[in-house]
Amino acid sequence: MIDLSALLSFDDPAPRYAQLAQALRGAIAEGQIAQGTRLPSSRALALDLGVSRSTVVLAFDQLTAEGYLTARRGSGVFATDITPLADVPVSTTSTPSPRPAPSARPEVLRPGDPDPTLFPTRAWARTLARVARSTPEALCLLSDPFGDDMLRQEIATYLRRWRGITCFADQILVTSGAREALELAIDLTIDRQDIGLESPGFAPLHRFVAARNWPVRWLTPGAQGPEAPDKLAKVTVLTPSHQFPLGGTLPIAQRRAFLSAAKAQDAWIIEDDFDSEFRYAGQPVPAMAGLDQLGRCLYVGTFSKTFSHSIRLGYLVLPTTLVPKMRQRFIHPSAGAGITAQRPLAIFMAEGLYDRHIRRARRRYGERYEAAVAALQRWPQDWGTFQTHRAGMQIAFHLSADLDDHAICAAAATEGFAVQPLSACDPNGSQRGLLIGFCRSEVADIPDLIARLGRHVSVAHKAAI
Amino acid sequence: MIDLSALLSFDDPAPRYAQLAQALRGAIAEGQIAQGTRLPSSRALALDLGVSRSTVVLAFDQLTAEGYLTARRGSGVFATDITPLADVPVSTTSTPSPRPAPSARPEVLRPGDPDPTLFPTRAWARTLARVARSTPEALCLLSDPFGDDMLRQEIATYLRRWRGITCFADQILVTSGAREALELAIDLTIDRQDIGLESPGFAPLHRFVAARNWPVRWLTPGAQGPEAPDKLAKVTVLTPSHQFPLGGTLPIAQRRAFLSAAKAQDAWIIEDDFDSEFRYAGQPVPAMAGLDQLGRCLYVGTFSKTFSHSIRLGYLVLPTTLVPKMRQRFIHPSAGAGITAQRPLAIFMAEGLYDRHIRRARRRYGERYEAAVAALQRWPQDWGTFQTHRAGMQIAFHLSADLDDHAICAAAATEGFAVQPLSACDPNGSQRGLLIGFCRSEVADIPDLIARLGRHVSVAHKAAI
Repeated sequence: MIDLSALLSFDDPAPRYAQLAQALRGAIAEGQIAQGTRLPSSRALALDLGVSRSTVVLAFDQLTAEGYLTARRGSGVFATDITPLADVPVSTTSTPSPRPAPSARPEVLRPGDPDPTLFPTRAWARTLARVARSTPEALCLLSDPFGDDMLRQEIATYLRRWRGITCFADQILVTSGAREALELAIDLTIDRQDIGLESPGFAPLHRFVAARNWPVRWLTPGAQGPEAPDKLAKVTVLTPSHQFPLGGTLPIAQRRAFLSAAKAQDAWIIEDDFDSEFRYAGQPVPAMAGLDQLGRCLYVGTFSKTFSHSIRLGYLVLPTTLVPKMRQRFIHPSAGAGITAQRPLAIFMAEGLYDRHIRRARRRYGERYEAAVAALQRWPQDWGTFQTHRAGMQIAFHLSADLDDHAICAAAATEGFAVQPLSACDPNGSQRGLLIGFCRSEVADIPDLIARLGRHVSVAHKAAI
Repeated sequence: MIDLSALLSFDDPAPRYAQLAQALRGAIAEGQIAQGTRLPSSRALALDLGVSRSTVVLAFDQLTAEGYLTARRGSGVFATDITPLADVPVSTTSTPSPRPAPSARPEVLRPGDPDPTLFPTRAWARTLARVARSTPEALCLLSDPFGDDMLRQEIATYLRRWRGITCFADQILVTSGAREALELAIDLTIDRQDIGLESPGFAPLHRFVAARNWPVRWLTPGAQGPEAPDKLAKVTVLTPSHQFPLGGTLPIAQRRAFLSAAKAQDAWIIEDDFDSEFRYAGQPVPAMAGLDQLGRCLYVGTFSKTFSHSIRLGYLVLPTTLVPKMRQRFIHPSAGAGITAQRPLAIFMAEGLYDRHIRRARRRYGERYEAAVAALQRWPQDWGTFQTHRAGMQIAFHLSADLDDHAICAAAATEGFAVQPLSACDPNGSQRGLLIGFCRSEVADIPDLIARLGRHVSVAHKAAI
């Protein structure tokens, strides 16, 4: 047995039992106390070291919990058999791995991203500060796992005004972004059956479904979105206001066909209404869930597009018939959104600041959209085509069939472009194209950016002929 | 063709094109304009109605986007063929479904829940207000999809001080709670192979894996946690500091065996360190990831237990070798935590307020733990047994084999008890017991609460003999 007293410094500010535990831990780990050694009794060791017996008992308890010591009832405390492993260093002496290099992220013309410089930073910060002063408890404890009551009320009002949906706050679940809302909606309804997905569509959703190996009924959107098939999947996810990523609006007749088939076949429609606010001509198209009044339709909305990705808030609106089932799952929540931004956002909406922000962003995005369309119209026609839906946060440029969209995007990325290949959204099709964002670029810069992007298409086009 | 001019009121504050669109929409939906009808030209209709032609064009564009009208190049605009569906009402006239009744949620002795009354409400609100004034941009735009830089730095410092883990902020990803961190860690490493899970263990994790149909290698924790099997799964999720829900601490020898097997077999260990801060005797047990220094170990931590469920923040610490792969997935984030609480929490930690809160909560929970143990020791021995690990946020009371834990919990729930059946955490075993929380009850109330809970066990016990 080594002399532990040498390892204990009474000048050290750490508690004595912790110092003793540290000394014993090191001695056992490094083999100075051999495995299987019986340690002195706590009374004897306390006398030896000149500390109280409870100090020794605490250190022994700690090391027993950690597994360095084993207590055998009636026969004392033993150093555990720890096989030394040369390749597993003990924490206190090792150094960390080298710092990984942060990777650069191209940003130019990224599809779907709002312009952070339009965010009403000061008004938002003032609202947060005001909630902190007036109702600090609203920043701490979520009284309902579905989300802050006031925010859910404001969302209900918003949906009635902007989206033609009449619902109660009780039907609304605030989520950590639209993706969580989609996943919760699917998990609630699918019941281990099949799912209908658009292709091209939202790639994270494709991956979510692929990870589960569910059978998929693929829907191919035409110019205005997919037709309802004779036999619906148990759950079908649609983007009726503005098909992602092509941009078409699902006509009312097709909406009705989906809804009546869902009713007849006991199936569900999940409406992913990710950026319907951004329509640059006319009003936003009313939601499909408004037509259905939430009989067979679950509705997913998000603040990521209208407000900020960083706030990571979305919501799910449930038919009343599904609310009790979802409540049951949320008795002990490990999903749903954090509380901190919820009440401030509710107040921001109630005071009209949110609407004002959407209107302002829509005006700017509309100008940028027109600039992007004008610039794309200068591309030679044999590169491909695009439709002018006058909505959304990206333009889908359909490339001529012999051009490789992945290769063009990779080449453009070296110059900082973040345009995305359409084929990545189309696991079950043959669409090739570029998803081109415009919301984050100034109108004055757009002609040059699109022209520079065009050079990469030109190179690919020349190589192909 | 009906007289549309009667439907347009020039006193209405809505834009004229919107009024016209609304009128046409209603007329088409209700059949007053028959399907296939060719509408007058925009010029003629504008003259008829006494509005500008652009008003009519806007209304036509809107309704074409919505699918009520179809434009045929060169031949005009037609009312679309909308098959009327008696069972799908048009939104504007229907009433919402009846309001669902909110369900009551039992709370007493709920396992794992922190006491919200201990939350430092005012200090937290003050910190938020301070960030809103001093750095409002930190509440708006997340500069890194992995999370706020300052928070990640504070978490790294915290892990070094409390958990014996040396890592860089770059290795840390802030998540929307521990569950998201676990799911991201698994998705990153599993590569469509098998997974090792503890049973009993964390039921949401069991469900996550079951939904994916991955092959599971079940690990049965002994009194101190599971033994490493000869052949590890590709990914094994462990709770080494404090086995969930049984409470044992995985001894150092078993930790080393897992780590060296993971290294030899190119496998991964995910350490779920959900409540290690709450140890009521001695220091927190150092993390397994500290022993490994993040070679084969991914580490999951959470603020839900130490701080607040409602804040919904957790984190994942990655081995440096896995950071680039995760960065790649996060180029366009739809996962990860919202920004709003991140910088305030970083400042709360940097100023020592977080540590102070943990110490205060630990002292209270420790007293409540002792009270719960003392009360449970008064239960007759033939009801079952429990171990005193002096840690965590629940006690696992193992029932005698002939008692039904689901039935006892259901009976107790009628009196407001939220104790949970151990068998629900044990899909691959035969554990029966009660998971009994204590953190949210005052010391003075605990003897009576445990005695009242005992009456339900007594009834079941009498019925069984």
